[in-house]
Amino acid sequence: LPSKLPYVGTTIFTVMSGLATREGAHNLSQGFPSFDCSPRLSELVSHYVKNGYNQYAPMSGVPAFRESLAEKTSRVYGVDYDPETEVTITSGATEAIFCAVTAVVYPGDEVIVLEPAYDSYVPAIDLNGGVAVYVTLDSPEFKIDWQRVKERISPKTKAIMVNTPHNPVGTVFSKEDLNALADLVRDTDIYIISDEVYEHIVFDGAVHHSMMTHPVLQERTFVCGSLGKTYHTTGWKIGYCLAPKALSKEFRRIHQYITFSTVTPMQYALADFLKLPEHYEQLGAFYQRKRDRFNEALKASRFRFTPSKGSFFQIVSYRAITDEYDYDLAIRLTKEIKVASVPVSVFYADKKDDKLLRFCFAKDDEILDKAGEILSKL
Amino acid sequence: LPSKLPYVGTTIFTVMSGLATREGAHNLSQGFPSFDCSPRLSELVSHYVKNGYNQYAPMSGVPAFRESLAEKTSRVYGVDYDPETEVTITSGATEAIFCAVTAVVYPGDEVIVLEPAYDSYVPAIDLNGGVAVYVTLDSPEFKIDWQRVKERISPKTKAIMVNTPHNPVGTVFSKEDLNALADLVRDTDIYIISDEVYEHIVFDGAVHHSMMTHPVLQERTFVCGSLGKTYHTTGWKIGYCLAPKALSKEFRRIHQYITFSTVTPMQYALADFLKLPEHYEQLGAFYQRKRDRFNEALKASRFRFTPSKGSFFQIVSYRAITDEYDYDLAIRLTKEIKVASVPVSVFYADKKDDKLLRFCFAKDDEILDKAGEILSKL
Ligand SMILES: CSCCC(=O)C(=O)O
Ligand SMILES: CSCCC(=O)C(=O)O
Repeated sequence: LPSKLPYVGTTIFTVMSGLATREGAHNLSQGFPSFDCSPRLSELVSHYVKNGYNQYAPMSGVPAFRESLAEKTSRVYGVDYDPETEVTITSGATEAIFCAVTAVVYPGDEVIVLEPAYDSYVPAIDLNGGVAVYVTLDSPEFKIDWQRVKERISPKTKAIMVNTPHNPVGTVFSKEDLNALADLVRDTDIYIISDEVYEHIVFDGAVHHSMMTHPVLQERTFVCGSLGKTYHTTGWKIGYCLAPKALSKEFRRIHQYITFSTVTPMQYALADFLKLPEHYEQLGAFYQRKRDRFNEALKASRFRFTPSKGSFFQIVSYRAITDEYDYDLAIRLTKEIKVASVPVSVFYADKKDDKLLRFCFAKDDEILDKAGEILSKL
Repeated sequence: LPSKLPYVGTTIFTVMSGLATREGAHNLSQGFPSFDCSPRLSELVSHYVKNGYNQYAPMSGVPAFRESLAEKTSRVYGVDYDPETEVTITSGATEAIFCAVTAVVYPGDEVIVLEPAYDSYVPAIDLNGGVAVYVTLDSPEFKIDWQRVKERISPKTKAIMVNTPHNPVGTVFSKEDLNALADLVRDTDIYIISDEVYEHIVFDGAVHHSMMTHPVLQERTFVCGSLGKTYHTTGWKIGYCLAPKALSKEFRRIHQYITFSTVTPMQYALADFLKLPEHYEQLGAFYQRKRDRFNEALKASRFRFTPSKGSFFQIVSYRAITDEYDYDLAIRLTKEIKVASVPVSVFYADKKDDKLLRFCFAKDDEILDKAGEILSKL
């Protein structure tokens, strides 16, 4: 059987989480919390499941949920999306990204991808016959050089994929980044596909600058979001896409033949829960304490790092410890010292090895302390 | 914004269910039960949600669930799939069908589609640059003339899509159908994508002949199934694909970038519940009583029909009543007499109008009686 994605093995998340389980390692690899969602939220799901909310949701999502999401978006970002025509619920942000790419990318189209990049972007482009055009961000800052992005734009450029807060490197867009991107796409037909799943996880007083907050970007952006990252429910697979009507229309045409609709009782539960701003308002502070705790535990180690500015990931350089290939090191550390991480090379098409590991700090304090203690012995 | 699916409006299921809700009509259109799942099953979901089973499932599905499904498949069909490498859980059978098509169909490939056909097949083919090659089944029998299928096979044929029990027409494959299909594909590289979501809903003592029960078919078939149809939980969006290792490998490569994984607590609940054969063993009898009740209620009407042999749909001819276009009639009946159905023309590429409506009888008895009573006045 020939493959459309010949370069693809099993995703790193499956590999590392599987290995961590088999090895009984502290799993700081795959991005999911080791703690549970709010009991109130699981009570709500339980309520809806037991009261018959078990049949197909509408294709675009449960109306009350779309309305809650539009209200919350308006409250947080001051931007109004029409829940009827501009908000679509998907089976995770991964599906949202796939549908957005599928909606706009035709065979031969170019899509600009800033590397390192989350691992689903390029397969989505390839499955649509598009061509990924890379702009590499350099460690340790990973700042976007918009002049270099501009140089990669061609008449074939159909879309630019952006991600803030950034997985894996934990950077965030500034207002200037938005302005620079807007200057590049103003008066063009270039779409933006924006992965903003960590929107509420930003640190040190920073704010999340969503693409929707800049009018030139808003009109051409598919904003892809996730409830799983915000509510500690990555396993519910509830994501969404916010986009202007014409974009949402084509997005839904695709979505309706890919999953058609998304799990019903969780949508009702989240529709209720979204109305309480407390949870997401304190989420940045909550994860900042986690980041600080993990970084503190690494202070005496030979790892070097700049504190993450957003997401639930901290990348660290291990150059002072070993010059092993990052992938080999991640596997070895899982087996030998029982701490699992993700090698950053997997986020580059050419597997560029900058001697960086990514640790997920969405973990119980004891796990962070213990992992830090073990890693400090290296 | 140009469209990859320019012929696609909103699916008929969204249109009719939306209209039925607005009109307060008895909704016999979209295929979902009006009754709830087993309280024991919702208790199980509640248990797992409240006990922290809320993070990502493995990409291929929760291991215990894949094992339960493989055991059940072995018990029911006598065919063994390796849960580790040949069973993949998806976000509904729609996703399974999309991934299977994406795994094998390349631009320019031909895929044979038997019409009438479920509405997601052709968009999935089109999104992959394939070409749907139609073989039309004729009412009222809708028997497959395999000689005609054979005539449509060309060197470009990459796959044949089949569906038994059939949505919308309620026919089922016989052993002879399997043999005839096997004769066509033996010694070719043609894949089969088989939609068997109504596997447990067959009537009058018939058995479901899965493609997996014929060795020549098994080795080349993606069997796409659904837990939603079997457990009255269409809103949980849990489907799966069973396929030999090499096929499953490519299937998973696609799946991992489309939804990555599927809602966790429902997978644990179903892993437990699948171990009780009572539910699915009595499902055919349960739906046969529904079919009979609805058909009985239509006996004195001017609708003509052959009883459905499987699925939860009954198609009826309204030729003796009116010669309106079926789509217009379905809309009018929803508005005027408050009974919603699905016009069968939507299942043909050329919207062929055979004066047929599809009614879903997965509804409470009172709804079936009431709808029958109203329809009998026409
Ligand atoms: C979809 S599994 C990957 C989870 C995640 O976002 C990550 O670890 O980067
Ligand atoms: C995915 S919504 C459609 C449900 C169904 O299978 C049908 O009504 O045919």
